[in-house]
Amino acid sequence: MDRMKTVTLYADWVPKPDFKLGSKDIDGTLSYLGSKVWKNPRVEIVDKTIPKPGPGQVIVKVRACGICGSDVHMAQADSDGYINYPGLTAFPCTLGHELSGIVVEAGADAINRRTNRPFDAGEPVCAEEMAWCGTCRPCADGFPNHCERLQEIGFSIDGAFAEYIALDAKYCWSLNELVEHYGEKKAFQLGSLVEPTSVAYNAVIERGGGIRPGDAVWILGSGPIGTAACAILKRAGASRVIISEPSKERAELAIKAGASHVIDPTEENTAEQVLDLTKGGGVNLILEASGLPGIVWADIENVIWNGRTLNTTIVIVARADAKIPLTGEVLQVRRAQVVGSQGHSGHGTFPRVISAMADGMDLTPIITKTINLSEVPENLELLQSDRKECKITAFM
Amino acid sequence: MDRMKTVTLYADWVPKPDFKLGSKDIDGTLSYLGSKVWKNPRVEIVDKTIPKPGPGQVIVKVRACGICGSDVHMAQADSDGYINYPGLTAFPCTLGHELSGIVVEAGADAINRRTNRPFDAGEPVCAEEMAWCGTCRPCADGFPNHCERLQEIGFSIDGAFAEYIALDAKYCWSLNELVEHYGEKKAFQLGSLVEPTSVAYNAVIERGGGIRPGDAVWILGSGPIGTAACAILKRAGASRVIISEPSKERAELAIKAGASHVIDPTEENTAEQVLDLTKGGGVNLILEASGLPGIVWADIENVIWNGRTLNTTIVIVARADAKIPLTGEVLQVRRAQVVGSQGHSGHGTFPRVISAMADGMDLTPIITKTINLSEVPENLELLQSDRKECKITAFM
Amino acid sequence: MDRMKTVTLYADWVPKPDFKLGSKDIDGTLSYLGSKVWKNPRVEIVDKTIPKPGPGQVIVKVRACGICGSDVHMAQADSDGYINYPGLTAFPCTLGHELSGIVVEAGADAINRRTNRPFDAGEPVCAEEMAWCGTCRPCADGFPNHCERLQEIGFSIDGAFAEYIALDAKYCWSLNELVEHYGEKKAFQLGSLVEPTSVAYNAVIERGGGIRPGDAVWILGSGPIGTAACAILKRAGASRVIISEPSKERAELAIKAGASHVIDPTEENTAEQVLDLTKGGGVNLILEASGLPGIVWADIENVIWNGRTLNTTIVIVARADAKIPLTGEVLQVRRAQVVGSQGHSGHGTFPRVISAMADGMDLTPIITKTINLSEVPENLELLQSDRKECKITAFM
Amino acid sequence: MDRMKTVTLYADWVPKPDFKLGSKDIDGTLSYLGSKVWKNPRVEIVDKTIPKPGPGQVIVKVRACGICGSDVHMAQADSDGYINYPGLTAFPCTLGHELSGIVVEAGADAINRRTNRPFDAGEPVCAEEMAWCGTCRPCADGFPNHCERLQEIGFSIDGAFAEYIALDAKYCWSLNELVEHYGEKKAFQLGSLVEPTSVAYNAVIERGGGIRPGDAVWILGSGPIGTAACAILKRAGASRVIISEPSKERAELAIKAGASHVIDPTEENTAEQVLDLTKGGGVNLILEASGLPGIVWADIENVIWNGRTLNTTIVIVARADAKIPLTGEVLQVRRAQVVGSQGHSGHGTFPRVISAMADGMDLTPIITKTINLSEVPENLELLQSDRKECKITAFM
Repeated sequence: MDRMKTVTLYADWVPKPDFKLGSKDIDGTLSYLGSKVWKNPRVEIVDKTIPKPGPGQVIVKVRACGICGSDVHMAQADSDGYINYPGLTAFPCTLGHELSGIVVEAGADAINRRTNRPFDAGEPVCAEEMAWCGTCRPCADGFPNHCERLQEIGFSIDGAFAEYIALDAKYCWSLNELVEHYGEKKAFQLGSLVEPTSVAYNAVIERGGGIRPGDAVWILGSGPIGTAACAILKRAGASRVIISEPSKERAELAIKAGASHVIDPTEENTAEQVLDLTKGGGVNLILEASGLPGIVWADIENVIWNGRTLNTTIVIVARADAKIPLTGEVLQVRRAQVVGSQGHSGHGTFPRVISAMADGMDLTPIITKTINLSEVPENLELLQSDRKECKITAFM
Repeated sequence: MDRMKTVTLYADWVPKPDFKLGSKDIDGTLSYLGSKVWKNPRVEIVDKTIPKPGPGQVIVKVRACGICGSDVHMAQADSDGYINYPGLTAFPCTLGHELSGIVVEAGADAINRRTNRPFDAGEPVCAEEMAWCGTCRPCADGFPNHCERLQEIGFSIDGAFAEYIALDAKYCWSLNELVEHYGEKKAFQLGSLVEPTSVAYNAVIERGGGIRPGDAVWILGSGPIGTAACAILKRAGASRVIISEPSKERAELAIKAGASHVIDPTEENTAEQVLDLTKGGGVNLILEASGLPGIVWADIENVIWNGRTLNTTIVIVARADAKIPLTGEVLQVRRAQVVGSQGHSGHGTFPRVISAMADGMDLTPIITKTINLSEVPENLELLQSDRKECKITAFM
Repeated sequence: MDRMKTVTLYADWVPKPDFKLGSKDIDGTLSYLGSKVWKNPRVEIVDKTIPKPGPGQVIVKVRACGICGSDVHMAQADSDGYINYPGLTAFPCTLGHELSGIVVEAGADAINRRTNRPFDAGEPVCAEEMAWCGTCRPCADGFPNHCERLQEIGFSIDGAFAEYIALDAKYCWSLNELVEHYGEKKAFQLGSLVEPTSVAYNAVIERGGGIRPGDAVWILGSGPIGTAACAILKRAGASRVIISEPSKERAELAIKAGASHVIDPTEENTAEQVLDLTKGGGVNLILEASGLPGIVWADIENVIWNGRTLNTTIVIVARADAKIPLTGEVLQVRRAQVVGSQGHSGHGTFPRVISAMADGMDLTPIITKTINLSEVPENLELLQSDRKECKITAFM
Repeated sequence: MDRMKTVTLYADWVPKPDFKLGSKDIDGTLSYLGSKVWKNPRVEIVDKTIPKPGPGQVIVKVRACGICGSDVHMAQADSDGYINYPGLTAFPCTLGHELSGIVVEAGADAINRRTNRPFDAGEPVCAEEMAWCGTCRPCADGFPNHCERLQEIGFSIDGAFAEYIALDAKYCWSLNELVEHYGEKKAFQLGSLVEPTSVAYNAVIERGGGIRPGDAVWILGSGPIGTAACAILKRAGASRVIISEPSKERAELAIKAGASHVIDPTEENTAEQVLDLTKGGGVNLILEASGLPGIVWADIENVIWNGRTLNTTIVIVARADAKIPLTGEVLQVRRAQVVGSQGHSGHGTFPRVISAMADGMDLTPIITKTINLSEVPENLELLQSDRKECKITAFM
């Protein structure tokens, strides 16, 4: 029982010529600009020692862990051999951060927020991916998603494509409610979706300010985040949940999650369709989850300009390099706003997502393929090209 | 076609000794303190001339109009012969303000907000009850529910227990969406419920600040407002909608509307039950719709004090004379707040309620009895004592 | 006394080939796209009949009226002879909308919000420029700046470069407080600045959400709006009010108004300066009042990206055609937002600006030149090229 | 240098008959209900070992520490010999929590938020009093003032009436800005006022929602919190800052801090005065800082009911046992709300208070008497009866 299997990413520290070590980077070890330094990524199944908990930590026996787009990009080399993922990374690192599992051991100071007492073995949990410090100015002010000393589980500290993982108790949230409502198996499936669903929830509810029952919304792109947003906004009372998505398979999932109307942007005039479906009213909230802001922005502004709804909020959740051609007058005349969204921690988001799931927000159809731990490497490769699967999840 | 039947309330202007004419009162005609001046109320079926529209008005052929508690209190005398209703009144007055109907004639400046063009005959509409001026400081600032020159339809200007009613177009909202989704008959039923539902919506969404999906709520009293609040908060994503209500019939309606749990406060320890149902968590929003704040307040504070939820908002929507024994420390330690709610106008409330209804928020089970116009007087009397009916509605 | 002098703009209705009459345009008379139809603008001193008040109107004897940039653009022809102003216009029209004056006559229903009684002759007032209808959906919802049937005083209905003006009472606000604190003369000077100051107030307080005492802010451009914003934000508790402005004269005025630091963007690296002045902290609110978003945007994003302040709000108040090259990741990583601001009506803005002025927010230094009514035409021309005057105001 | 002088409170653990050990109490050591268990308080000057820093801690050489009302109540016995302070306490304990000083030693993980680097010796700092855990649900959600495992410096862990104090770095905030603007001596005076000023800031800005420039406010009671609130709200742009306070000395201090009008509630009709001073307008924000809610509440409701201002927020910051006789209809008709306020941590409050002080918000007149460490015990006794001193502060 001392050793365990893990899916570990190796890469070589070969900084590009234009790279300058940042103030928080550690030479040879950690960078906030991964794609500038890491070359020749290799994913391997590796045996490691099962970790022991620090005083505020728990050891979780992993039961499920989903593959995220970031995992794919870390493991994928560009034509120069550098990894595609541009952010915080420290290799070698066990991958995996969309996890659920069971607490098997706990440090003395590891408190279970559900009971407000020390963690007991047997508690089903999921975990945040963002390892916020809790003491910097953003953390002290209540914005852990913008921690100034952030680490990321599965990126810069060992993740959950492993039989066991050590986690600070402060990142863990009980899945007890899900076990009660769905039984263990489904609870761990759903539990592994809490992290990406919380990204969507943070985007539309915390950053987007939510909606009022009877409002209309439009979500661009039904990957896991966009699809989860459909479910959340339907649940928040949207009378119209419009998804624009070219993949028929993914659009189907959005409908299952709660979308009321689908637009295929490759076949229809998206802006016209959104206005038609809302009888010229337009929408109260727009979620940019396509990652193609340069391409979709004209449609977004068209809907706001020509729709009769004031005060529309555009939330940008997908990361993209492209500049957005923003027209100030659209925001002025229509009293609109653009906000950016990052992360999933804080603001009561994780426990609310879990409660909503326990009350019937069942997103398990998002998991379109289940695998075991040793199949993770090949599926990381598959997802470099596949456009049909939504979420591939390893069960252990 | 020149004459029409109406249900008209007569009363005698006999000011009590302590009554002083207020700055906006009109001697013999209008008072903001009805129960201080009006004696011997009589409800009669009376023939009146069908009104002609002013330039900004429409004439609506009434199709449905519900009886509100205020109607009952206006028509009911206390032991001294004075009416029970304490507010703005000018008699004689046609009663009725929970209306739906069809536009049959329109003044030249009567604009239909749905089309942004002059009203056409045939448009199905409902109407606000609060006749706000649109020019005083509260109206100019966006708070029409607190208009400084408020009149009230069915209280100080002729209402809708009549075959026809003249209404300023600015108080009317199209029911077109409801007709499309439910057909005419049900559209007018639902349409007559838009006004009381908007009172509940204004309370929990506008004044209470709404909730986030996954939150828990507790509503005290399932009269029409409390029951509509169950539906709205369920739709807004509440994972637990707890209603406390002694009448089994009314509790049943609350369940139909969306309540997830019922507590009978005459048989159970309400605070304990609320805490049990939320596993000690407590609730994010509390709606006081019982009209008995003195009796229920200890339970409310108990739930907030002992529950683990911070930031609970208590919304007081029911009118009551009794002082509330507020404990400041409960608000301090639990970061809680108390807000008052009045009215239903402005803030995009009516159109959102109509959209939510069109999307499936079907509150017609609240209408427990349907009558015709000439039966209104006897049912106003019935409701002085009956505790089983929820909403009695006249159809024309 | 039947006739009065006015400054009236004439132009010829000669639609450009690509112009299509909009749904609210009136052929030969009114367009929402002025620069597409109006040719050969002529400003003339013209005698007109003194107006009589409608039932809800007052007649105001004008005492002061400032020249706005829009006035200049309406009176200025481009190389093809079309006016420069792109918005709502109906000619011939008396110009002028930054006014103060004295009520000399009032219609029966013209209510003075200060007293909540009919207007008396002698009341000193200023007025909103936006003639909102009070009944469309935006007005009913509390957003008169986005009225669907907006008219504009001095653009599509007769303005205040005249001895008298007829105004709906609902657009008028008493200057009584200013007269008490400053005496009549200065009260009318300040009174004519309430309108542009309210544009700034709406931008930074209503749309920008205000600030907390101790925050830092950065305003780009110290024209009348930017300068007023310095005064408002200083008053709101900003510990650093940074203005970037190339004109030394205007920067001087910003300092008088409340700016704590000036940057000349033509001589300094603006972003570096802002970061230096805030010790790397960055700012909580940014007001784009330069009208050159394409040029300044890189600096704005630089300050947000490199400053340590989260949650910065960028308010765009100046109109500009240029697209803004927005970087989504800046909004995401720094939890920032962009909002547009239009207008000055509603939200309690006018009375709060007047109270702040009465409490010492003296913006009269903005008025760098005073003229009489007959000098308006030549000063409209002067301002086509002059960059030194801030506000030129006619006194009558 | 191994030993230091402290002011330490001793008391005997003699639980009252009705006391039951709470879930977080520790028998003989710590209770959340101090006045139920601690008897015979004795304040003594005691020598203790100078503490060594833990990994995330700093050792601060104390330069100033103010006496708070809570200190007085802990040291004061009622007629049965029990302490007057009802809250969290663990004795023996060094008292003192309104502190400023200089870092003299730092643990390896003690980060200075100002520099985002490890603390250097020599940094001037003040500190929060609330020792929040940073990991419970309230802390994770951004509400450290409501931490579920709160400790309090100077109440349950050793405080700052001592030559040195060990503090978690996460509770410390740099006073560098104050030293730059005021020099060392005044910086430490002001620095010792940051904690109580932050209590006022949290009350009126965070919990009360702040104000808009031009608003009017009313503060009841000019103790240190009420007086600081005058300064904060003046700085936030209040055009009228009304203080009601019977002590002439204290009212004087409020005027120095920023109050524009004083009412002596023992000699004047307070509500009438507030309405007069606002010309019938009423106020936008009311701070209950008198601790006598039962006595002042009728005046508060009178001002809201009869004033013309909607949306007034009443913030309750003073602790009091008395029930408040709340009239729901006042909140309903006037769209008002009541909120409770506790604490000073989080929400960016400390750094904003420091910035506001550095920008001129000089509250040092609040310190009406300065003493040295050994005079603390006699001054704790003096303050049991004295009503003239505002803040007595020990300098070291």
